[in-house]
Amino acid sequence: MGNTFGHLFRITTFGESHGGGVGVVIDGCPPRLEITPEEIQFELDRRRPGQSKIVTPRKEDDTCEILSGVFEGKTLGTPISILVRNKNTRAQDYDEMSMKYRPSHADATYDAKYGFRNWEGGGRSSARETIGRVAAGAIAKKILRQVAGVEVIGYVKRIKDLEGIVDPGAVTLEQVESNIVRCPDAEAAQRMIDLIEKIRNDGNSIGGVVECVARNVPKGLGEPVFDKLEADIAKGVMSLPASKGFEIGSGFGGTLLTGFEHNDEFYIDENGNTRTVTNRSGGIQGGISNGENIIINVAFKPTATIRKEQKTVTNEGEETTLAGKGRHDPCVLPRAVPMVEAMVALVLCDHLLRHHGQCKVL
Amino acid sequence: MGNTFGHLFRITTFGESHGGGVGVVIDGCPPRLEITPEEIQFELDRRRPGQSKIVTPRKEDDTCEILSGVFEGKTLGTPISILVRNKNTRAQDYDEMSMKYRPSHADATYDAKYGFRNWEGGGRSSARETIGRVAAGAIAKKILRQVAGVEVIGYVKRIKDLEGIVDPGAVTLEQVESNIVRCPDAEAAQRMIDLIEKIRNDGNSIGGVVECVARNVPKGLGEPVFDKLEADIAKGVMSLPASKGFEIGSGFGGTLLTGFEHNDEFYIDENGNTRTVTNRSGGIQGGISNGENIIINVAFKPTATIRKEQKTVTNEGEETTLAGKGRHDPCVLPRAVPMVEAMVALVLCDHLLRHHGQCKVL
Amino acid sequence: MGNTFGHLFRITTFGESHGGGVGVVIDGCPPRLEITPEEIQFELDRRRPGQSKIVTPRKEDDTCEILSGVFEGKTLGTPISILVRNKNTRAQDYDEMSMKYRPSHADATYDAKYGFRNWEGGGRSSARETIGRVAAGAIAKKILRQVAGVEVIGYVKRIKDLEGIVDPGAVTLEQVESNIVRCPDAEAAQRMIDLIEKIRNDGNSIGGVVECVARNVPKGLGEPVFDKLEADIAKGVMSLPASKGFEIGSGFGGTLLTGFEHNDEFYIDENGNTRTVTNRSGGIQGGISNGENIIINVAFKPTATIRKEQKTVTNEGEETTLAGKGRHDPCVLPRAVPMVEAMVALVLCDHLLRHHGQCKVL
Amino acid sequence: MGNTFGHLFRITTFGESHGGGVGVVIDGCPPRLEITPEEIQFELDRRRPGQSKIVTPRKEDDTCEILSGVFEGKTLGTPISILVRNKNTRAQDYDEMSMKYRPSHADATYDAKYGFRNWEGGGRSSARETIGRVAAGAIAKKILRQVAGVEVIGYVKRIKDLEGIVDPGAVTLEQVESNIVRCPDAEAAQRMIDLIEKIRNDGNSIGGVVECVARNVPKGLGEPVFDKLEADIAKGVMSLPASKGFEIGSGFGGTLLTGFEHNDEFYIDENGNTRTVTNRSGGIQGGISNGENIIINVAFKPTATIRKEQKTVTNEGEETTLAGKGRHDPCVLPRAVPMVEAMVALVLCDHLLRHHGQCKVL
Repeated sequence: MGNTFGHLFRITTFGESHGGGVGVVIDGCPPRLEITPEEIQFELDRRRPGQSKIVTPRKEDDTCEILSGVFEGKTLGTPISILVRNKNTRAQDYDEMSMKYRPSHADATYDAKYGFRNWEGGGRSSARETIGRVAAGAIAKKILRQVAGVEVIGYVKRIKDLEGIVDPGAVTLEQVESNIVRCPDAEAAQRMIDLIEKIRNDGNSIGGVVECVARNVPKGLGEPVFDKLEADIAKGVMSLPASKGFEIGSGFGGTLLTGFEHNDEFYIDENGNTRTVTNRSGGIQGGISNGENIIINVAFKPTATIRKEQKTVTNEGEETTLAGKGRHDPCVLPRAVPMVEAMVALVLCDHLLRHHGQCKVL
Repeated sequence: MGNTFGHLFRITTFGESHGGGVGVVIDGCPPRLEITPEEIQFELDRRRPGQSKIVTPRKEDDTCEILSGVFEGKTLGTPISILVRNKNTRAQDYDEMSMKYRPSHADATYDAKYGFRNWEGGGRSSARETIGRVAAGAIAKKILRQVAGVEVIGYVKRIKDLEGIVDPGAVTLEQVESNIVRCPDAEAAQRMIDLIEKIRNDGNSIGGVVECVARNVPKGLGEPVFDKLEADIAKGVMSLPASKGFEIGSGFGGTLLTGFEHNDEFYIDENGNTRTVTNRSGGIQGGISNGENIIINVAFKPTATIRKEQKTVTNEGEETTLAGKGRHDPCVLPRAVPMVEAMVALVLCDHLLRHHGQCKVL
Repeated sequence: MGNTFGHLFRITTFGESHGGGVGVVIDGCPPRLEITPEEIQFELDRRRPGQSKIVTPRKEDDTCEILSGVFEGKTLGTPISILVRNKNTRAQDYDEMSMKYRPSHADATYDAKYGFRNWEGGGRSSARETIGRVAAGAIAKKILRQVAGVEVIGYVKRIKDLEGIVDPGAVTLEQVESNIVRCPDAEAAQRMIDLIEKIRNDGNSIGGVVECVARNVPKGLGEPVFDKLEADIAKGVMSLPASKGFEIGSGFGGTLLTGFEHNDEFYIDENGNTRTVTNRSGGIQGGISNGENIIINVAFKPTATIRKEQKTVTNEGEETTLAGKGRHDPCVLPRAVPMVEAMVALVLCDHLLRHHGQCKVL
Repeated sequence: MGNTFGHLFRITTFGESHGGGVGVVIDGCPPRLEITPEEIQFELDRRRPGQSKIVTPRKEDDTCEILSGVFEGKTLGTPISILVRNKNTRAQDYDEMSMKYRPSHADATYDAKYGFRNWEGGGRSSARETIGRVAAGAIAKKILRQVAGVEVIGYVKRIKDLEGIVDPGAVTLEQVESNIVRCPDAEAAQRMIDLIEKIRNDGNSIGGVVECVARNVPKGLGEPVFDKLEADIAKGVMSLPASKGFEIGSGFGGTLLTGFEHNDEFYIDENGNTRTVTNRSGGIQGGISNGENIIINVAFKPTATIRKEQKTVTNEGEETTLAGKGRHDPCVLPRAVPMVEAMVALVLCDHLLRHHGQCKVL
């Protein structure tokens, strides 16, 4: 249970890091949307291992196949199933892991819950599972763009204590993709890259913060009181591997202001639209989009797998030590960017369809 | 849509701040649980207005009535409906609000979404809606306590920049309730109270951070990959009015550590249980509880309604100004504590039932 | 669990036959719909006990109160909660029932499942629960009528072996309500009424078939492959008390025809619309409405409670006998008509909103 | 939307008759269940085309591949994805169908709903979609058998007006599989086979009734008031292609009895269990299983595709005629048996897990 996300635009992901493959079934996609495997592949390539010198060198080309739901290049309104085969398994890297629990991984909790687990490379708890999310997110993004001109753009805002300066109102995908760390502040990006390389050479890892903006979101999306837009986004990104915190708009920093300082005053813009002068609300008020930019932050912890030795235990209750042997990311942030974008896009698309219905939106 | 929360222990809330009343229907409560209106009332009294000098002086006694689902003092396994009548309406306070949008409130977005709203006191977007959540949370807490000895304790950790020192492993409900701001650090509490009084006298407002701990949570709760325990908790608390941020375990601060510093090493305790030396994971690994304390933080913004005048617009597109006239909270934190506890308890109870089934858990 | 029905137009019912009351929360009702308690009461009066000489003489006026979701006579788009208080309890009628299981009732299974039950008058398994459905159905009907001119009309087609002749394409509510058995064939109706009176005098009971037609249903409603329109309707009516069978279109009788006889040939009508010559499909093809009349049949068994003595057992495993003592319906059919209409209307309304979205349909 | 079925044991099917393939994702399967592709293939072979002289001669071997959720022969508790590739497409058979709507098929309604359809062989509305259901049903059956010894056995009870005599309490899978029409009454079976062959030679088609029994079902399954066991089963089987009617227990025939005749009297059996003398309730009372055999009937209409010419229209509004050209079933009943079994097993398994939780049931 728990592998389905969304209400009208609803995805179900499947697959372990090892075994036949990973993928997603997307139910509720509007009919008559033009979509190609290449558009999906573009996003998958942004999350795949081996894409640059600062991510894991595992070679996985992660080629997607659309199994259903698309006919003559257009969606049918029926479930879209997308499959990415698993390859390049090096189970010998993982032998030790059949016994030893990796610290701050899910090995121990999966054993506690299910009494059995696929110990090859993390199984279902591997970030490889997010392939299905990113594939579905590519479709959600296209719907959002086509129906309402919505843009969803994520980027690395901070690596450890190195923070970039980025204007969420102006940042472009091109800027994000202009460097391998996906921080649009070129100068900060270089320092981040240097730090990640240093950390990798130490056999250690680091984390940071991904920011994501959604622009041109129509007013009125979000379903109080539980399916508020920020609540659904929070659930989406907090279900990503390694995420530890979430902020909408002013976030934790907003708690240091007074109400007089924090409130977003209203004004009428040149087109007669009700707008806010500031955007501490982050584009959502009362759980409903207000037409301003939706801006969120997601904290990602340092990668759990490191080459340094740490204390752990076995599944038989013996204390031991473990040093990571596989080829792992010293920092997940660059690859987390498309994952965050995907979750934001999936939530927005779901709420767009709740507002418009599935079949009439396009 | 969006007024239902939970999968097996599922609540649906209803009601506006004005009108017949507010309440909740709880579906999936295990049968044979002893429950009294007084146990529910205890939690409602912790969230009600007028309970102390630092919250809104509105007098609402918020007396609950159990309409169904309980027979001879025990739950039937059928839906439990709980109703709190609305009273003490001072609609004249709200006259201006039928026209003017309150900054950083939901007035404008409700109009944008529904084309119509109850402008009396916030309608559905009023925090009064949380009565249903807190009532249901009282029952969830009792189930958790009875089945597994789980304790869910929330408290004010920070008001603006005033932070209390609290040990989540040892804090008691008695300590939380020992002062009106609900910060177990007595010395910090006094400074917080003084600050809130000062801010109220200024006609301004402030926010802060509520921390919540769940102790004795059984291992194995949580349903990857989307219904991870922290994802469901994040959704729950981010659906509370005024919440702007969420952290599990090390949260945003954890992004400043390296993996070597951040990882929770395992050990075997004196009872042979697999435990972690540190708890930066916050009691959840891979979306599944690991038996350590679950610790979360929730950021609440400063109350939007203030007596100071601010710029706004009317529902007819005219620019104007507005100064709050009603009796409002200068700081929502003391009353938010039972709301956060309720959401955490609801999520844990739902996942407990997913693990055990509804009818056999007690 | 299991007390919620619908996906976008979603109802949750609550309440036992005895206790505080019964009711419903309707989530997802479009905003700006004009609705009065009287419109809801009209339908409740069609299902209430004591309405005529052939139903139970229990006096329950079943007056409804709208607790939330309606403001100044119009829906807000927020949850509509409707409450009907319980009254006129004669628990002494039920004393024996705290021990003895009534044959073909739910007493024994509720005890087996929940280990505890409200034995006063059937508790949750009482047909009194359907008050919430009928109240919600009144609103669903109004939405259907207003958005698309849809009419949902049910009627008694058969009582035991007495069958009326009714044209589903032409029958009116006025005809249905023109006699107390709700069979629009006046001559058959009189024979049915005579039979019911005779059976009641025998202390026995009878069943029959309710037919229900939905006219002017827009093409395109229904969500294959599981939420086909007939599948959702089947679930809805098979969840009514005492229902034992369901047919769409040709039903069981259709199995006696060949494909050549059974197929609905297409033609183009004078307005250029694609229509079918016959309607053995019952208005639904491939799970999707085709614009023809939707016609269903529901079988209701004879009322389980009878005055004749029958063999049974106690909750302690002793064999005994029981003769019904309360004031019961000799035939549920006349009161079942509004229940069937309600379930059909709820399903159609839910699918209408899936097609159009909640907020923009009106 | 609408391609997911179940609450705790939840399946999502995907795929059109043509294109990459069809399949299913099963979420919520208990961990540690031993399962092989062969066990799934056994059921798929019972539904596949070309299995005998009385079904369609299309050659589809329908070989399944388990993509995820199974490791070293045992389920992981993670989603099980099963894929069957499409083959043997003869699109030239279908050329005419890109224009002409087949009478009593879903071509016209899919066009009305989605504005676009895969006209090759029925696309999503093809019975080929049920492959995913039958594969999931194989797993559900195994869980039911292993946890509680539940047996789910379906069989052909009637073909047109030829009815077999079968004892639901004693019938075996071996008897069902002993002839190609799947009617355990050997003598009736032969007459049925002869009739089907005759009808096929006429280019016509026929329907009938499948009966299904579930034995050894534990007491207490079913979730009133909407998710009653018979309501969920009704939805499941009424979502199957070509089904037109559903009965539980006495069904429509029960409406001809009086309450005194129809009620199931209770007694205490030799083991002290509460049992019923008769079983007109069909094993379910008040929506909850009572431990007696669950017995249902499902009416299937005659196959819509026939070789005889019939009147129809094109998607451009022209009247025309059509005679089926492909290789079609003269009678779907023999292949519908495993489909009905699958839907019954899926519902029972879902309710079993609601009662026991996912992870602890095995």
